[in-house]
Amino acid sequence: MKNYNIIHLNDINKLKRIELHDQLNLTSSEISINQINAGESLPFVHSHKQNEEIYFILNGEGLLYIDGEEIIIKKDDVFRISPQGARSIKADDNSSLSYICIQAKANSLENFTLKDGKLEDCKPSWLQQ
Amino acid sequence: MKNYNIIHLNDINKLKRIELHDQLNLTSSEISINQINAGESLPFVHSHKQNEEIYFILNGEGLLYIDGEEIIIKKDDVFRISPQGARSIKADDNSSLSYICIQAKANSLENFTLKDGKLEDCKPSWLQQ
Repeated sequence: MKNYNIIHLNDINKLKRIELHDQLNLTSSEISINQINAGESLPFVHSHKQNEEIYFILNGEGLLYIDGEEIIIKKDDVFRISPQGARSIKADDNSSLSYICIQAKANSLENFTLKDGKLEDCKPSWLQQ
Repeated sequence: MKNYNIIHLNDINKLKRIELHDQLNLTSSEISINQINAGESLPFVHSHKQNEEIYFILNGEGLLYIDGEEIIIKKDDVFRISPQGARSIKADDNSSLSYICIQAKANSLENFTLKDGKLEDCKPSWLQQ
């Protein structure tokens, strides 16, 4: 079995919602790409039992509701929400809102980058002399 | 302590490299935003001890080396790599390559979306009658 899965999406900014867990055989996280139409919002407030969420705003503007606060969000904002945070999102009346949402189990990360990485001896064609 | 952290990045597509773990107090994952200049590559091949990686190509074209294969990658490709996969990335000679890389512990996800979510009774201003 190969050590990877790859998919090509159509323009990420035009997707309404796509969930990647099953398509990519993810085991560490669920990742979705979402778009809320101008003036619309998620119809509920939710929290999580275990998972931390990280949101990348790809395009547009809107509002994040979090534990009673309402915060303006826009393209290139990135935010983390703890599992217990009560959250919802609304697109601005004049702008749809596109974002990536990553959910992964809070406190599950043990090491990362240099401490989790291992150098390998094999080389791609472009690194061979 | 608040249940969230938020940062505003300058144009994601113009960042050389930024790591979000410490800035966002991430506990589930490390997320980086990366740019490889046209014609350049990561100078090594690496694998991971524990972490699965997911890459989102934001802009440009290039090549993914994975376990001896070389695969063309481009904007809106998304791929997952198992910890043991030996990987490297190169930007096309005519195009820089921007991508998000998420690393999180393989097999750590227990539930997600509906099974991990909980509805909350509180409401933002836009959902109140």
